[in-house]
This record gives sequence, structure tokens and C-alpha cells, in this order.
Amino acid sequence: MESDNIIDLFLHPKSVAIIGASKKLTKGGFRIATNLITNNFRGKVHFINPNAEGKLYDIEFKKSILDVEDEVDIAIFYVPNRLIPDILKDCVEKGVKGAIIEASGFEEVGEKGLELKEKILEITDNFTKLRVVGPNCMGLSTIDGDSDSDEKEGFFSGFGVFSTYKRGNIALISQSGMLNGGYLMHIMTKYPNLGFRYSCSIGNKMDLSEIEFLEYMMEDDTVNVIAIYLESFKNSRKFIELCKKARSMPNKTIILLRGGVTPQGQKATRSHTGSLAENSNLIDGIVKQSGVIYANNFYELFQYARTFSLMYLSGKTLPKKGNASFVAGSGGAGTITADLTFKYGIKFPVLSEKTYSALVEVFPEWMPPNTFAFVDIWPAMEKAMMNNVKPEVVTSRVYEALLKDPNVEGIFNMMFCSRQFRAMNNVDNIITHAKQASKPIFFWLIGEAKEVGRISQKLAKLNLPNFPSLEEMVKNFSVLVQKSKNMDLS
Amino acid sequence: MESDNIIDLFLHPKSVAIIGASKKLTKGGFRIATNLITNNFRGKVHFINPNAEGKLYDIEFKKSILDVEDEVDIAIFYVPNRLIPDILKDCVEKGVKGAIIEASGFEEVGEKGLELKEKILEITDNFTKLRVVGPNCMGLSTIDGDSDSDEKEGFFSGFGVFSTYKRGNIALISQSGMLNGGYLMHIMTKYPNLGFRYSCSIGNKMDLSEIEFLEYMMEDDTVNVIAIYLESFKNSRKFIELCKKARSMPNKTIILLRGGVTPQGQKATRSHTGSLAENSNLIDGIVKQSGVIYANNFYELFQYARTFSLMYLSGKTLPKKGNASFVAGSGGAGTITADLTFKYGIKFPVLSEKTYSALVEVFPEWMPPNTFAFVDIWPAMEKAMMNNVKPEVVTSRVYEALLKDPNVEGIFNMMFCSRQFRAMNNVDNIITHAKQASKPIFFWLIGEAKEVGRISQKLAKLNLPNFPSLEEMVKNFSVLVQKSKNMDLS
Repeated sequence: MESDNIIDLFLHPKSVAIIGASKKLTKGGFRIATNLITNNFRGKVHFINPNAEGKLYDIEFKKSILDVEDEVDIAIFYVPNRLIPDILKDCVEKGVKGAIIEASGFEEVGEKGLELKEKILEITDNFTKLRVVGPNCMGLSTIDGDSDSDEKEGFFSGFGVFSTYKRGNIALISQSGMLNGGYLMHIMTKYPNLGFRYSCSIGNKMDLSEIEFLEYMMEDDTVNVIAIYLESFKNSRKFIELCKKARSMPNKTIILLRGGVTPQGQKATRSHTGSLAENSNLIDGIVKQSGVIYANNFYELFQYARTFSLMYLSGKTLPKKGNASFVAGSGGAGTITADLTFKYGIKFPVLSEKTYSALVEVFPEWMPPNTFAFVDIWPAMEKAMMNNVKPEVVTSRVYEALLKDPNVEGIFNMMFCSRQFRAMNNVDNIITHAKQASKPIFFWLIGEAKEVGRISQKLAKLNLPNFPSLEEMVKNFSVLVQKSKNMDLS
Repeated sequence: MESDNIIDLFLHPKSVAIIGASKKLTKGGFRIATNLITNNFRGKVHFINPNAEGKLYDIEFKKSILDVEDEVDIAIFYVPNRLIPDILKDCVEKGVKGAIIEASGFEEVGEKGLELKEKILEITDNFTKLRVVGPNCMGLSTIDGDSDSDEKEGFFSGFGVFSTYKRGNIALISQSGMLNGGYLMHIMTKYPNLGFRYSCSIGNKMDLSEIEFLEYMMEDDTVNVIAIYLESFKNSRKFIELCKKARSMPNKTIILLRGGVTPQGQKATRSHTGSLAENSNLIDGIVKQSGVIYANNFYELFQYARTFSLMYLSGKTLPKKGNASFVAGSGGAGTITADLTFKYGIKFPVLSEKTYSALVEVFPEWMPPNTFAFVDIWPAMEKAMMNNVKPEVVTSRVYEALLKDPNVEGIFNMMFCSRQFRAMNNVDNIITHAKQASKPIFFWLIGEAKEVGRISQKLAKLNLPNFPSLEEMVKNFSVLVQKSKNMDLS
């Protein structure tokens, strides 16, 4: 990106100053400093604190930003809000181009907060002299290299300590700092193979908002998935315009979660970001038509992001018609999955003649295969075992046939995981098929928790998604269909 | 239970015979034998197989059930279906009272299967001489003592090997053997603190069905939660009658999942259990009114079962009005939770004057607490730290106040888990409150995956539920309200 883009400067600064840096381990100002230094931030770092003496991480504390000799791109504020105006004046004088304000206590607390905002508007000349991210935010993060590799590198400006992360193709833009902090930390430690590129906590968006960040992510080639949490729109018309533009972009998917959409949620929002309730239903309707994927809660937001991230990484072709196949050794799981496909608009198509013939060969006469793409594989495996054929030959042939079938756009796979039945399950063979296929193959693993864990890890390393429930498996397939339908509409 | 109850005989037999017992490790007949012996089944065990010689687990193979000298309560069939009629004749002659038939290939495969059924009806004189569980099932299981204790004891008659289990208050009645097999194994290894009492795989219910098993579970004092999966009703009128009776029983909760309720699901069901589609919507409506808790998929079925199980074990009072409190350090999580409470009919009640005063004392002036039960605890903790008061004092006082408030029926707790912030989180103190309270306290844990795991285990040991998402937390609270409302209706 060209460096005169203000978001580029915020996400890839060459020089930053921490206003409120501290040696005290319990202070946010210490944790921000630690984040920058221990994660190998490449730019210059300055520590500003009139009450601190000496050095931290070999960097000398300065009393004021005006004492810094170099240019400073971004000032990261971790001080009580009443101190902000005076320091911000210095920043403008110094020529600092952007400020990340993490403190709360602005619009959301009423009159005093509004006064503070007025002062900031005056000092920055309506944000023309200096741009602001926040207040009430958890900072911005850029991940350049995995934490467990030699290339470890990142810019973490929030006060939540990050030490475990992987670079990936997801960008997060959120109005809840918790999502950029504790929850992101949870996701990144729970799914160590899931990678993120940016995490942007936009807080109460006094100046910069979802608009500028979304615009940036749409242009940035390292980003495929843009996960957004909003409690209000800064400019709904512009937001919708951007979503419509992204709709036709095959390498971009926007996933949106809105908070404060019910009367109870709105009551809660007011005490959080101070956002006023909008005519939510109307705007929601328009946003939905603009081609974003709607998530209903935090869990879905990150899960959809993960699914799309994996699809982009593994280069799968998204299903267009919603025609899936189901392969399992359980009738009950099949029945429930069939009910769920109905709920989510997925179909089991009629098999091509070629596929059907291939299945007939491996199935017993007393239990022929279905003519549609719903395969209870158990009778075929029983037949193989009775004829002293290895059951893994069956799974392999069934997969080959289904993957070649032009009517089948993807496969739902239920797998029973047990140490004892490793050979029969034929996991490695199925995984090889799943990896090579251009069609998405989704997994639902049950059985011994340990063995489920082992196979999950194998899948994760190859960017193959597995899900904790049949409903999530089917629902996530349906959002892929939604994205490709949206592309066709454009 | 009196021993002339046939289900009692099936679940607590004094003597069983495995028809098709085998020494071959890959055979189901070997695994059933292993299940009985290694899990310390207390009754007598006989192995029947005309082609086997010698002994297995120190028990001699017999050619026929007629060679057994002792009385035999239950015969467990693991032989191809065509062999069943002749052996069943011998069983009737021997005076065996029940048979568990695990093979498939009856009604679900058409004409040949129906012939087989006719023969069985004739041999058993319409099931008057001998009662049948199955066919196409995974057997019955009774758990008497935990697998990791000296009291280890259980009756496992299915061909899925069970070695890790805990005795508890949940009974499972299912028409999908997968739920009694691979999925139950998954749940029991994933949640080692979750206990089950019975697992009944009723298969195609040629004779005994959900009706007799449900009746039994309603009478059995060791069972509190009855989780049922059905693809068809054997007798919907009787089923509804039983549900209505259970509705008013405070120590019983029935959770029901129905499969094959959509056109696609029905198509799948026919190839599974051979069930015919009923006028599903009409019956569903009546069943819902009869006071059962409806689950939408396998995951919900087991999750609701777990939640109720924990409520019974910890002796919590179920919420009647749906008035909950939310305690968290994140505004965004609060907003989303508030949206979710609206969706699931939960309210944040106005706090009593006493509670409000208690909160005002710990909150800062610039950010007073809400007057309703929605507590963003972060400003209060910040105030404490500024005044050199330990932040754990704040959490403790907030919890005490909320738990005493007559308007609050339970608490949703969001907890950020991090090694570094253990003291601040005050986990042990909160857990002590949660354990002692008569009100349910639900947890949502985020942060470092390892620390989340550690705290989850602590909670599980004390029968305190935590959930992987805010939506599941709110939804599970709402089913508790549903149960207590149902009781009031009776």
C-alpha cells in the first residue's frame, strides 16, 4: 500500500511513542511496551512518561513527546482521559500523524466526556492535523510472522499481552475491545493453525471508523476475510457501498456481526460505546442484500472467518448450487444432517450414472446405495470385510467416485475416531483426497476425545475444517454457497 | 425396581448369553464379551458359538443356548440376521426372557426383512414368550461405578468398546446406535465429569420401544435427566401422556430430539430405520405442549442433558421468571448477551435498592452501575486498583450483593482467563460463591486456552456449567426457565 494512506501508517508505523509507558508490571503502559519489544516490532519505539526515570528494554524514558528527536508516526495513549488534551497538543506540535487512544470515559459517560471530545476536535482541527483511533479501544495489531518461528514479528499496540499467534489472511475490525483482546487470544491459542493479519479495535470511533479500515482491508492483498463487529454505523450508506463492491471480489469475504440490535441490546450498548440506536431493521435489511455474510454471535463470527480463511488457503472452489454429499457410517447422523440441510438450503443431488455404478460395485445386494448423494458407507465396509477385502479400499473408492461427480460440490464427512479402528477409518487416505480435491470437504469427528484431537490436528495442518456439531458443519457450508451466490448477483 | 419389570431385567440382568461370542479380536462378538468382562459385569456370562472352541476370559464356549445349565435372563445376539429365527426358538425353549438383537436387515430392507420379522413374531408368540430390544441397535448399557475407581462396574452389551465412563443421573434412549456408541464415547471422554446411568439403543423397536424405557426411567430414582432421540413414535398418544406426567415431577426432565422431521430427513430415515413419516408437525406441536424440552440437534441434546444433570447434582433452584444478571469486564460481550437474552426470553431485572447501594459503593462516580442487573465490573476494579484496594474484593462484594437480590434468579459470568491475571480474576472466590449459591451461575471463559482448560476443570469438578459461546450460555438458561414454567402449568 502507498504510505500516504493513514490506515497504512497506523498498521505499519515506522516510529511509535507510548504515552504512559511504565516500568510497573501491573500497568497497561508496561504491557504495551512489552508487546512491542518482545514481538520484534521493526519500527522505532519511544517511551513517554514525565514520572518515569531510567530505561525499560534499553530505551530511555522521555518526559514529553517534544523531547523525541526523530519523527513519530503514531502515539499510543495509555493515560487517564483528563490528561489527553494537553499531550495531544504536544503531539500536533511535534507533527505526530496519528493517535491510538485506549482510555474510556468519553461520550459513553455523558457531559464531561463530551467536553473532552470538543477539546480534541479543537486541538486536531477536526482531525485534519492528527487522526485518532479510539477512544475506548484495545489498540491495533499487525501480524507479520508466526510467534513460534524465526520470522516472529508483529505490531501489537493494545494492553492485552500477545505471545502466541500465527500470520494469516483474516482481518478483524471490532467495536468491542474484548474481541481484539481476550477473545482473539482465546481463538489463537485454541486454534494454533488459524492465522490473522490484522486486529483493529476501533472503540468509540471518534474519528477513524469501520469505513477507513474496511476500505484498507479490501485493497490489501494479504487479507481474504474481513470479520467485523459493530454496535453502530459511522456512515451506513458508505458501508453498504463498500460491501457491494466487495461482493463481486472472489478473494474477499466480509462477515458482519451487529450488536445492540434488540431493545435489550440497545440498552446495553448505550452504557458501552454510547452509540444511539438506529433504525436497525431497515439498515440490516439493506446490508444483508449488499452481500456480507451475517453472523449471529461472536462464536459464529470467528467460525465463519475460520471456514472462509481455510477455503482461501486451500484454494477450494466454493459451492454454487448447495449440492453436497454425506458420507458416514451412521443412519441417525444422516437423518439429522438431512434435516439440517433442509433448514439451511443444502441438497443431496442425484448421483451421476457413473458414480452410482461405482457405488453399486462396493455395496452389498441386500443394501444397495441410495441414488442420491447420501452414502451410509457401513454396509459396503461390512461386505468388504466378509470378502476379506480391506475396508479402506471401500472408502477410497467411494471418495474417488463422489469427488469426480459433477453434481457433487462438496462432502460432509462423519468420522468415528478410535485408536483401535485407525486402519478401518482410513483417515490418511481420506485426508489425501480431501487435500487434493478442489471441492470443500467438511469433517465431523466423534469417538475417543484423544483420537479426535489427534485427527483434528492433522486436518488443521492441511487447512481442512472440522466442526464440533453437525449443525455447524451444514451451516458453514451454507455460508460458502451464500458467498458464491452473492458473487453471481454482482 | 421390582424384578418382574421386563426393562429392569434388560438393564440389570443376573445372567446373560452372548449369541455369536468370538475369540477373533475384529468381531463384534469379541467386543461384547470384552465389554462385559473388563467392566466387571456382576451377573453370569455365557458364550454361545457353534464354531468356537475352548475358552475366552476363562469362560467355556457352548454350542447352543440349550447347553447352558443355569437360567439365562437375556440373550445378546451378534449374528447375521438369517440365523436369528432358529436360535431364537432355542431361547424360547430355554426360557430366556429377553433378546437384544444388534443386527440390521429387517424392515429397513424390504420384503426379506419383513419375512424375518413375521418368523420372530411367530416364534415369540407376538412377544409374549420373549421380549425383544432392537433389531439394528447398539445394545443396552448400565453404569454402576466409575471406570477410574475401585467401584468400576457396568453392564455394556453393545459392540462399541467402553472403557472410560462415570456413573451419573442421565439416561439416554435413542433410535440411533451412533448416539449410544461413538457419540456417547466422545461425550464421556470429552467431559470426564459428566455421568450417565443408562444408555439404551432401541434400534428399530420391533417390540420394546421408547414407551417402556421412558416409563422405567420415570420410576427409577437414580435418573434425573432422560435424553431421547426418536425417528418415529411407537405410540404417540402414550408418549405424550408420559411426558405430561413427567412435566410436574421436579426430579425428572425429558429432553427430546426428533429426526426425520423435514422432507429430506424423512427420505434419509426410510433408509435407516424404515420408519414411515408421520404427520410430524401436528404431533410435534402436541409433544411440545406436553412439557418436554426440545433439542434441535445431537449437540443440543447432550448439552441440555449436561446442564440439567449439573443443576440436579448441585441442587440449584431453577429460574422461574427468567431474570438473570450479567457480570463481565466487557461491554461488547454485554451487548451481544443482551441481544441474546431478548431472543431467548431472558430479562435483566431492576436491582433491589439494597443491591444497587452495594454496587454504588464499589463503582467510581464517573461510571456508576446500571440500575438493572447488567454489571460491567471493569470500572469498579479500576477504582479499586487506583485506591490500592485489591480488585478481588470488588468481585466478591458484587457477587454477594447479586446472589442476595430476590429479583436475580441466576448469573451469567464472563471470565477472562490468563495466568498473569489469576489474582485479579479471583476465580476461586467466585467459584466458592457459585458453589454455595442456590441460584445457577453459568460461565463463559475466554483467554489463554490452557488457562481456560484449567478453570473449566475446576468448574466441572464442582458441577458448575461453562459454555463455549454466549449463545449457548443464554439458551441453556432459557431451557431451565422452560422446565420450571412447565412444572407450574401442571
